[in-house]
Amino acid sequence: MRCERIWRGARLATLDAARPGLGIVENGIVAAADGRILYAGPATEAPAFEAEEALDVEGRWITPGLIDCHTHLVFGGDRAHEFELRLAGASYEEIARAGGGIVSTMKATRAASEAELVAAALPRLDALIAEGVTTIEVKSGYGLSDDAELKSLRAARALGQARPVSVATTYLGAHALPPEAKGDKAGYIDQVIALLPRIAKEKLADAVDAFCEGIAFSPDEVARLFAAARALGLKLKLHADQLSNLHGAKLAAEFGALSADHLEHTDDDGAAAMAQAGTVAVLLPGAFYFIRETKLPPVDLFRRHGTRIALATDCNPGTSPLTSLLLTLNMGATLFRLTVDECLAGVTREAARALGRLDDIGTLEAGKSCDLAIWDIERPAELVYRMGFNPLHARVWRGK
Amino acid sequence: MRCERIWRGARLATLDAARPGLGIVENGIVAAADGRILYAGPATEAPAFEAEEALDVEGRWITPGLIDCHTHLVFGGDRAHEFELRLAGASYEEIARAGGGIVSTMKATRAASEAELVAAALPRLDALIAEGVTTIEVKSGYGLSDDAELKSLRAARALGQARPVSVATTYLGAHALPPEAKGDKAGYIDQVIALLPRIAKEKLADAVDAFCEGIAFSPDEVARLFAAARALGLKLKLHADQLSNLHGAKLAAEFGALSADHLEHTDDDGAAAMAQAGTVAVLLPGAFYFIRETKLPPVDLFRRHGTRIALATDCNPGTSPLTSLLLTLNMGATLFRLTVDECLAGVTREAARALGRLDDIGTLEAGKSCDLAIWDIERPAELVYRMGFNPLHARVWRGK
Ligand SMILES: [Zn+2]
Ligand SMILES: [Zn+2]
Repeated sequence: MRCERIWRGARLATLDAARPGLGIVENGIVAAADGRILYAGPATEAPAFEAEEALDVEGRWITPGLIDCHTHLVFGGDRAHEFELRLAGASYEEIARAGGGIVSTMKATRAASEAELVAAALPRLDALIAEGVTTIEVKSGYGLSDDAELKSLRAARALGQARPVSVATTYLGAHALPPEAKGDKAGYIDQVIALLPRIAKEKLADAVDAFCEGIAFSPDEVARLFAAARALGLKLKLHADQLSNLHGAKLAAEFGALSADHLEHTDDDGAAAMAQAGTVAVLLPGAFYFIRETKLPPVDLFRRHGTRIALATDCNPGTSPLTSLLLTLNMGATLFRLTVDECLAGVTREAARALGRLDDIGTLEAGKSCDLAIWDIERPAELVYRMGFNPLHARVWRGK
Repeated sequence: MRCERIWRGARLATLDAARPGLGIVENGIVAAADGRILYAGPATEAPAFEAEEALDVEGRWITPGLIDCHTHLVFGGDRAHEFELRLAGASYEEIARAGGGIVSTMKATRAASEAELVAAALPRLDALIAEGVTTIEVKSGYGLSDDAELKSLRAARALGQARPVSVATTYLGAHALPPEAKGDKAGYIDQVIALLPRIAKEKLADAVDAFCEGIAFSPDEVARLFAAARALGLKLKLHADQLSNLHGAKLAAEFGALSADHLEHTDDDGAAAMAQAGTVAVLLPGAFYFIRETKLPPVDLFRRHGTRIALATDCNPGTSPLTSLLLTLNMGATLFRLTVDECLAGVTREAARALGRLDDIGTLEAGKSCDLAIWDIERPAELVYRMGFNPLHARVWRGK
């Protein structure tokens, strides 16, 4: 059988759900044509391939390209100075008076051009790509005006043109209430909803997200937004139960959302509803660590109910200035006590599921996009165990 | 004045103790000759230099090259599998039965040749160097036999030949009791002491360290070792008060040790004694994080007494598989609430002090080794604030 490229001499973690654990193949082959996987499995069972290019990976491990399924990569400015002030003892009020908080990011995002937003995001994206990331989700949500949200989504789409990486975009207009809304949450949600048809028509976003929390939007406001988004065929995601239990996980499940994210305060009901609806639990240990949260997400409930678990960086300037998915794996294990297999599935197969793209990415299976990460490691656990070390040998996106 | 290289257009964080805070110079110049700093300070006050090579760093920040003053970089094997087993619910007994724990590292270290130990350590060293590290301390302590300790120290010295980096070596024979000692700690300490003259004569170690803890060696055993080491002119360091308060900090201070390290359980007396003796508190947040310690080191006591604070990776396979000094900065701030200035001083000036080398490295001052890190940042706080991001633009070691 003809193919374009073949990788031989590999140990595969296929993440194929039909195999146990990580779906390990000790003596494996991956063959690709037209950017897709023709074959991924044991060398002994492979068809005879005639390859234009054959690579011997000399016993290295191949996993699916990593997927960061929850980021706020596009924003203006940074919040390093606010971090510095807080460490020096400044109160939240003092920081707000000094121009800190989400409003500072909103202002910088509004002030930036689309090209400037792209330029600011590229080093962050490059850091993720350097660790084997081949798909990334990027949310808007720091513009908080129609123009600035559209600009942010265009910048997110442009990232996928600027680099060899797949970008899924999410409209997060309902991230926070902008100052000009003067406390009128219902009116602002109307405004967010009014932009949906244009976003759907111009295909600027694959999904719609909201921040359901006392300090942000209520379950009723989110439900209104979700109903409008669903009617337009947009997929749904939700920042849920991070700081308190507003039953956001259950709400997300009721709307058939792809994922509910954060989930530190989710209860048994919420975990069960998510499992039943197929809504993925996206855990964000970087934010947990950075804000020194102590309430752990209910991993045991998710296990008991069979709720799928993904992990992501939540890269954002306020609560998770994190651009390493490998470090996220370590935090998932160290802080949340996820197993190695759960961690690795969480940035491949389950992350793909959290983006509604499991048919195309997330495992090494024939027919899927040939997105690979090739690692200089002796066992997959090293990817989780080490901190601040990048053993990536090579990265393949769409067969190249 | 003639010089070999000059860096213009820089913002400097000199860490010069004669200036406040980070010793910031907004429009700065660094000039070097023979690998040493001829001038570092304001452009307006600089002599007229004739430079063989002039570089415009275009507003980037220059700090002293970073110093990782506490690592166990040389060891055989890794402990990823043990980490995996523990996450899967294995008890310490089960892990010990499966060959885990420090004994597994000891066996792998003993089985490795010096060249193999160097080869295993180089990727770890390269990760540190890539973040601007120009000096690193490396301890023995996984050999636990005369031959294997000597081999480890030679491997540590060889790292400094293999890469453009300064290596300070530390003999940590008193790291743990090897199985063949059959519980005879006093006898083993005799053995460790008996090797000291050879280590001093062959200049294999700059300092001697010990692990003072209930599970390791008692204060009396450490005092015996320290007295012998001091008599040979070796500097002293101590793993102190990590898991309990055996008054290791005070012991280290009484012997005039360069540093006491870990210090989660150090009390007011210990902090005061360290300040008075000039013994640096080396804090190791990577180990704190990785073993999920909850007892915080007494940072406020150190501040009150004026005890100097350094930060280091503690890179080791069992409790801190960490090879990022930038991530260590973030952990120092996030977990220990150190300020940005304390963090940055902790991997430059204070780390130099913890190695007894403040006369030569650790600040940007005329006469010191021209070890620089040049950063693509807008403010030094970014080095502490971000997680899993490396903004190093260039690194200079001994002027090159
Ligand atoms: Zn988020
Ligand atoms: Zn140590």
